[in-house]
Amino acid sequence: MSALYIGLDVGGTTMKACVVDSLGHAATSVVMPTEPQRGQEQGLATMCETIRRAASAANKTMADIAGIGVATPGTMDIQAGLILDPPNLKPWRNVPVKQFVHETFKIPTAFQNDANAAAYGEYWVGAGREVKSMVLFTLGTGVGGGIIIEDKVLEGQHSHGGEIGHMKIAYENGRLCGCGRLGCLEAYASATAVVKRAREALKDDAGSVLHKLQMEGGEEFSSRGIFDAAEHGDSLAAKIVDETAFFLGVGAMNMMHTIDPDAIVFAGGMTHAGEPFLDKIKHYIHQLAFPVPAAKTLVRYAQLGSDAGYYGAAACAKYLVEGKL
Amino acid sequence: MSALYIGLDVGGTTMKACVVDSLGHAATSVVMPTEPQRGQEQGLATMCETIRRAASAANKTMADIAGIGVATPGTMDIQAGLILDPPNLKPWRNVPVKQFVHETFKIPTAFQNDANAAAYGEYWVGAGREVKSMVLFTLGTGVGGGIIIEDKVLEGQHSHGGEIGHMKIAYENGRLCGCGRLGCLEAYASATAVVKRAREALKDDAGSVLHKLQMEGGEEFSSRGIFDAAEHGDSLAAKIVDETAFFLGVGAMNMMHTIDPDAIVFAGGMTHAGEPFLDKIKHYIHQLAFPVPAAKTLVRYAQLGSDAGYYGAAACAKYLVEGKL
Repeated sequence: MSALYIGLDVGGTTMKACVVDSLGHAATSVVMPTEPQRGQEQGLATMCETIRRAASAANKTMADIAGIGVATPGTMDIQAGLILDPPNLKPWRNVPVKQFVHETFKIPTAFQNDANAAAYGEYWVGAGREVKSMVLFTLGTGVGGGIIIEDKVLEGQHSHGGEIGHMKIAYENGRLCGCGRLGCLEAYASATAVVKRAREALKDDAGSVLHKLQMEGGEEFSSRGIFDAAEHGDSLAAKIVDETAFFLGVGAMNMMHTIDPDAIVFAGGMTHAGEPFLDKIKHYIHQLAFPVPAAKTLVRYAQLGSDAGYYGAAACAKYLVEGKL
Repeated sequence: MSALYIGLDVGGTTMKACVVDSLGHAATSVVMPTEPQRGQEQGLATMCETIRRAASAANKTMADIAGIGVATPGTMDIQAGLILDPPNLKPWRNVPVKQFVHETFKIPTAFQNDANAAAYGEYWVGAGREVKSMVLFTLGTGVGGGIIIEDKVLEGQHSHGGEIGHMKIAYENGRLCGCGRLGCLEAYASATAVVKRAREALKDDAGSVLHKLQMEGGEEFSSRGIFDAAEHGDSLAAKIVDETAFFLGVGAMNMMHTIDPDAIVFAGGMTHAGEPFLDKIKHYIHQLAFPVPAAKTLVRYAQLGSDAGYYGAAACAKYLVEGKL
């Protein structure tokens, strides 16, 4: 019988857990609210409860589980199993996640950054399942990511591996990033940055349908609306979308000239824009990168949606239990 | 008795080989002219002769050698053991280096990119000998480099791993790189780029001592002269040097936010500028990078000079023979 793992993916709003077997088959997942404002002791208790419910949802007991993997947002010390000072889980600080979960269940427990886990999930059973190395870009409020090389998460020596949203693509006059730095990829290519760039461009273009969207949407004016407007022929929106593809092409090129993976994978809300947007990114990759990686690197969308994190967390547990660490 | 390896580092002008034991102790090295214009058959013969002479220089016969490692410039297919279309070894094309050397000596033969090999050499016995992961920047005519993670060269899936001189640090108005692309790090931070930036700046600064250097030096006007002038108080030269440190800081930051290595190492002629220049690079790294890697990543100069390549080639042979591949 295939060994069973539980992957838990903790986000700022909800956490999601699921039993996954060693072949990557998942049972029914369970979701609970994270409620970080209730404090980290409560948060740790909720993590353990979510893990228990995942076992129940699969008609298993914890005695059936060979390993647990927990993925959370940073900042963190992955090796120590600690969340340090997480902007998305305020007011938590220095939370010993790995130790707490391990002591609660007495089951081998792995700990990983959520973006790294999502990359590992896609690598294991999603967009990267037939490749040997992969870089994932997750496009959301920020640009997250993860790098997997030959079945190993590139955690980095200080838990900063795969922070690919914070590579600098403009050394001067760079846009202000959420991290406080200038010129990070995230400041150009996150969903938030797309909206910001569109708002700025609207000042110089009275005719765009985006004015109407912005009036109606207010704070809800979203990258989705901009991508839709582009599809329906709005030229300003089309320009914003095209430039976004270019910026992602720059990010992909930089990964191709350093990591040189088998595959570059894009995840997150913007992928709803579908094949035309992916084709634009590929177009810029061909224009920007060296000919061999440009021709040979697979460029595709992620396949697991918001399940990637628990798949990846389970994969980390599997990696731990199978003694590769 | 410790196993013996021969590392051969093939450059555009000369090739250098040496017997190195499994502890990293090197015998006397030998050098022969590469003379690429005499053709690749002659080149392959010279490689084998250099290898033989290295054995003799160590008072050994080829029967004493456990493995051979050959490092060459690209373009290449590392896995296939082929040099493809090397700008620095014209007119060679599609040269089956690994196969030829292996068939000549019937000894296990490894093949590697020269910059990757230099990084591996520094990792093994030089600036990175106590760390687990390292990124090397080699500052010369171009900016080369190599990435080592846990005793493994990051070759990439298409032999483009560690081409870190070709990460884009300016997505618009980028300087023209030797590779034909715009905005690559190499176009800002190579020795060639330093001279080019100085020449441009001289047009707007009549008082710099660099004018005199440029007149005297002609084509010999070098980055060394610029660094010397900076040290002697020339303000334009100091500005060029400072900006160079900044660009290298950007390159280092991008590696710290993706690879997150234990150490960043700089090699090549510019390192003659000594500690003050390294301190400037560190200053910019602290300004640019996330606090934890900025505080913890070792930043230092390479230690092996032009011997790094043969040490690294020997290390590749050792890695092959010890069955890690």
